Amino acid sequence: MVFGETAKVFFLASGAAEGYSPLNAFDAALIQAGIGDFNLVKVSSIIPPGCKEVRPRSHPPGSVVPAAYAYIISDIPGEVVSAAVAAALPERETDAGLIMEYSARGHQQEAEEIVRNMAVEGMRIRGRGIKEIKSLAVEYKVQTIGAAVAAVVLWPYHEETDD
Amino acid sequence: MVFGETAKVFFLASGAAEGYSPLNAFDAALIQAGIGDFNLVKVSSIIPPGCKEVRPRSHPPGSVVPAAYAYIISDIPGEVVSAAVAAALPERETDAGLIMEYSARGHQQEAEEIVRNMAVEGMRIRGRGIKEIKSLAVEYKVQTIGAAVAAVVLWPYHEETDD
Amino acid sequence: MVFGETAKVFFLASGAAEGYSPLNAFDAALIQAGIGDFNLVKVSSIIPPGCKEVRPRSHPPGSVVPAAYAYIISDIPGEVVSAAVAAALPERETDAGLIMEYSARGHQQEAEEIVRNMAVEGMRIRGRGIKEIKSLAVEYKVQTIGAAVAAVVLWPYHEETDD
Repeated sequence: MVFGETAKVFFLASGAAEGYSPLNAFDAALIQAGIGDFNLVKVSSIIPPGCKEVRPRSHPPGSVVPAAYAYIISDIPGEVVSAAVAAALPERETDAGLIMEYSARGHQQEAEEIVRNMAVEGMRIRGRGIKEIKSLAVEYKVQTIGAAVAAVVLWPYHEETDD
Repeated sequence: MVFGETAKVFFLASGAAEGYSPLNAFDAALIQAGIGDFNLVKVSSIIPPGCKEVRPRSHPPGSVVPAAYAYIISDIPGEVVSAAVAAALPERETDAGLIMEYSARGHQQEAEEIVRNMAVEGMRIRGRGIKEIKSLAVEYKVQTIGAAVAAVVLWPYHEETDD
Repeated sequence: MVFGETAKVFFLASGAAEGYSPLNAFDAALIQAGIGDFNLVKVSSIIPPGCKEVRPRSHPPGSVVPAAYAYIISDIPGEVVSAAVAAALPERETDAGLIMEYSARGHQQEAEEIVRNMAVEGMRIRGRGIKEIKSLAVEYKVQTIGAAVAAVVLWPYHEETDD
């Protein structure tokens, strides 16, 4: 997959963890999410037409992989932080879908509800029907330094879907 | 276009809009700018030698596209926010040009003037003459949650210029 | 190098400079680091298995290049700011290594020590031995507006190592 191309499959992932520093906490959360050995490139945030969900993939390590993600890092002991993503898939296969990301203090149930509403709203202003919304959220209660991350990975390899 | 390659054409785009959430406002501003269905990848911020301006492009949806952009999101009703970009094109075709981005509270005229000065300064410290500066700015008066975005899109497709 | 591929070589770079605006200071710091004419794409932050360090490269201008980097911009005259990166290379050639980035007020010696500890910790939680840690840091005493940047550039070209 090169610049100007579109991903054919995607997957959702989330994780949360403690860390030695803020960046280590983010890194550990990525590891928990199963995507800690990628070179993630942040994108704004479209599911290409026909792009299908697959089970999470993890290899090869170090590969450069586009992803839309939300994260939150906190160093306030006892604080609960959450990250969530939603992927709205279009009714019409020729339309693009949409990814929304959200992170905040508070619980994952609220974060997931908010990010799903964001995805609904993003499709509404595009005038596109929604076939289905895939979403994933995670929460974490900080001990010393903690992070939560949720991602939609646009898998850049040419491969079949799982089914 | 792959990593390690250069874009052959670019275009400027800007937009501003209201949104259901801060990210929805940003998303709506991208839609207004005509680039709401891309997976934008933020880059720091060079016009490759020989890269030409073209009219804005918009397809295919979901493709991964490098862009330099500025944005600002505000939830202060009545606040005016602006985003601006400038692309300084070099006198010598074999030199690289430069993109600068700027966003702030205030009006687009000031933002555009500032970003143009930033581009002049960036070329000056490189010791390069300027053939022309292309710039674009947009302002937005926030109702509830609003965003403004200005972008230089490095179009990753192999294609001819408009002329 | 395309999305889904891995870099074969990397190099470290750092720089610091004064600028006309915050973004100009960052841009000038990139120039000082020898990477001011790239379209850098920020990645999170893996050294692929077998990826080797090389001497810094600089051409062609405007090419899109993945990099992990830390930066800090300050407009407080007299403030000392530092940026640092560390690349932990694995004992086993088939394992991935890790990049950590850190920036803060203060001196480069502390920043470099912290970022090296961050890299050690990141490898520890992955259960991987460390063969060597490459690190680089830079500090800058701000006059009016200053920036410091440190980067690990994942060189996207197919080429041999220096030796």
